[in-house]
Amino acid sequence: MEKLKEKILTEGRVSGDDILKVDSFLNHQLDVAFLNEIGKEFAKRFEGKKIDKILTIEASGIAIASIASQHFGNVPVVFAKKVESKNLDKDVYEAQVYSFTKAKNYTIRVSKKYLNEGENILVLDDFLANGRAAIGLNELVEQAGANLVGVGIVIEKGFQEGAKLLESKNINLQSLVVLDSIKDGKVNFR
Amino acid sequence: MEKLKEKILTEGRVSGDDILKVDSFLNHQLDVAFLNEIGKEFAKRFEGKKIDKILTIEASGIAIASIASQHFGNVPVVFAKKVESKNLDKDVYEAQVYSFTKAKNYTIRVSKKYLNEGENILVLDDFLANGRAAIGLNELVEQAGANLVGVGIVIEKGFQEGAKLLESKNINLQSLVVLDSIKDGKVNFR
Repeated sequence: MEKLKEKILTEGRVSGDDILKVDSFLNHQLDVAFLNEIGKEFAKRFEGKKIDKILTIEASGIAIASIASQHFGNVPVVFAKKVESKNLDKDVYEAQVYSFTKAKNYTIRVSKKYLNEGENILVLDDFLANGRAAIGLNELVEQAGANLVGVGIVIEKGFQEGAKLLESKNINLQSLVVLDSIKDGKVNFR
Repeated sequence: MEKLKEKILTEGRVSGDDILKVDSFLNHQLDVAFLNEIGKEFAKRFEGKKIDKILTIEASGIAIASIASQHFGNVPVVFAKKVESKNLDKDVYEAQVYSFTKAKNYTIRVSKKYLNEGENILVLDDFLANGRAAIGLNELVEQAGANLVGVGIVIEKGFQEGAKLLESKNINLQSLVVLDSIKDGKVNFR
């Protein structure tokens, strides 16, 4: 997605050999017009697929998934919770996700009410790095007996193992841009 | 907002004398078409006001603010972070917010890049109960030297002190519905 590459080149900030910050439009401040461009592109990538629901994860996935839903006929969005909440039902699907940045496991949860057997689920998220969050979301889909249509990612870190992990499970991965490397303060696109 | 009252009556679930769960459309699963109705109503409530940016708080405010932005000319949305993140800048505005449900303070943060002097800021959030989160967001706006245009709330718990607290600071509060009480498994609207 050329517009996304331009946006990353003009607004992204690089730190070290693996961090790209896009908090001016995707992770902290949100550029809603641009999120609509992203949503349109996801709709193109998954054209012709039946999608009943979009599943994402708090917090960074929520804006992406909500805006994208408008380009998929306003299908419901469900976001998995990372933070324990006393308002969440007891009856949940849950999975363990290993965080490399925090060097520990965390639990993601979705109420059983909002993932149903036979539903066709599209997973959307901001970044794909080691792929553990996407795999965790796929586990929730499997627990529900629903079908994973695919995983749509805004920015894939192609130098980490996420894509291989998803391929090994025959998951249809669509990344809007893939980074080959982050070096000397610059991103290199595939 | 009559449609919101109907939605709460048909989909909301009450627990005890103070909890209304609306996780089928607002807090866990998101009804994006309905969020657009909410966004339109906020635009009506703040018609004629100059709004440069919408400020909200993760996670439940993000979808509301992002969809609402489309009815305010796609102004940028910024969400305050509750969870410490190594990707967040060191240079932040921060405020302490007391959580009654968790009986402790937590810190909310916004990067100084994304709140600027003189900007006209609309705060949007899902619930107003004791008002501490809204007051914390107002503190961030004040620290930045920006102007708070008002606070838009989807569901106000009118039997808690939030509205009074905001009034005492002359904040323009617009709640789409106000609950007078939650009793015997039912909500009573003002």
